[in-house]
Amino acid sequence: MTDSVSPAAPKAVILLSGGLDSATVLAIAREQGYACYCLSVDYGQKHRAELDAAVRVAKALGAAEHRVAKIDIGQFGGSALTDPGLEVPTEGLQPGIPITYVPARNTILLALSLAWAEVLDARHVFVGVNAVDYSGYPDCRPAFVQAFEDLANLATKAAVEGARLSVHAPLIDLSKADIVRTGTRLGVDYGLTVSCYQADDQGRACSACDACRLRREGFAAAGLADPTRYRGA
Amino acid sequence: MTDSVSPAAPKAVILLSGGLDSATVLAIAREQGYACYCLSVDYGQKHRAELDAAVRVAKALGAAEHRVAKIDIGQFGGSALTDPGLEVPTEGLQPGIPITYVPARNTILLALSLAWAEVLDARHVFVGVNAVDYSGYPDCRPAFVQAFEDLANLATKAAVEGARLSVHAPLIDLSKADIVRTGTRLGVDYGLTVSCYQADDQGRACSACDACRLRREGFAAAGLADPTRYRGA
Repeated sequence: MTDSVSPAAPKAVILLSGGLDSATVLAIAREQGYACYCLSVDYGQKHRAELDAAVRVAKALGAAEHRVAKIDIGQFGGSALTDPGLEVPTEGLQPGIPITYVPARNTILLALSLAWAEVLDARHVFVGVNAVDYSGYPDCRPAFVQAFEDLANLATKAAVEGARLSVHAPLIDLSKADIVRTGTRLGVDYGLTVSCYQADDQGRACSACDACRLRREGFAAAGLADPTRYRGA
Repeated sequence: MTDSVSPAAPKAVILLSGGLDSATVLAIAREQGYACYCLSVDYGQKHRAELDAAVRVAKALGAAEHRVAKIDIGQFGGSALTDPGLEVPTEGLQPGIPITYVPARNTILLALSLAWAEVLDARHVFVGVNAVDYSGYPDCRPAFVQAFEDLANLATKAAVEGARLSVHAPLIDLSKADIVRTGTRLGVDYGLTVSCYQADDQGRACSACDACRLRREGFAAAGLADPTRYRGA
């Protein structure tokens, strides 16, 4: 990884949750030569430690800028990630779309990234969606990403003026093991990241939620040491 | 207009800015028999009187519920509607996309309406975009609305389970005169609405911005009295 980005580097907006996947995406975009404008979204998630993790990751991986946008979709409820009355499941992945699904989250996150991209005059947005080792969320599928790119190319002033916006989802076909292998090669310190859906204030993971299970299995399958800090460990 | 909505009425989310167009859309949806869940968005607009207007309009037109979602896209800048350093133009409509354009605004508003629709289990979203007497914004065109509907039908849990979401834009082909005629027929009190991009705290209009011009010309072309309260009038 280079330590500085060329002044002529194309700008990209990177959706950065603070988790393992989006940290890897940031490292990939950086390696590809983009100046990385990282956007995190405070949408009322209970696991707020991921926002602190996003700050650490953006700094460690040389983001050109990092912003946090606040939006109160938690008021709509409907997800165990935002509703204090709904428990995060810990019994392992089940068939169907889990209760941790946040209605329209990726649509909203991508819409916000599009707004910032338009103001920055950036032509690239990166998102860490993955359709292999994932929780079955509808808005992580390749067809969804393509549909958002199609929408973006009708939605903006730049599009009317003839510019193309590309939505990059470099993890979409990777297994979790491939993701951690890629990030490790690019120098990502996964000890800075927080994936757990119910991480405590210090960012320590529960080890039992779907996000913890997928993450742990990824490190194991890749044959890499898992730097995650677990509660009680 | 009926005074009450049947318990069996299908639910619809109505994007309600507090202006003339979205008030008309609400009246249309109500007449079509929908239970109307109105969503206004505080996105940092300087003309905050429109949010007060939205409260009045939702009440007057019998909304089942009215929510205001707050989101800080104003931090990205780039629009005279959100940036204190940019003046709202008052010299009349000019060619091209004006500086009042808010980057990705309708993409974000529709994404938020999709989130609420999903939680409500609603299959309908109404938006007051119009591509006739409008300011040339890219995200008011029919192709944009269609692209969002396509996206929505890939993005949600309901879509995966086979339900269709429809995005209704009943004003899209209407002139401003036709819009005010329609709303007047349906009993909309346009004196409650605020369209002006620089309305004062009491909701009084400047009479010179693009929104004021389009609105005034609409009433004149329809041969209807203009109930707008102008400053200094």
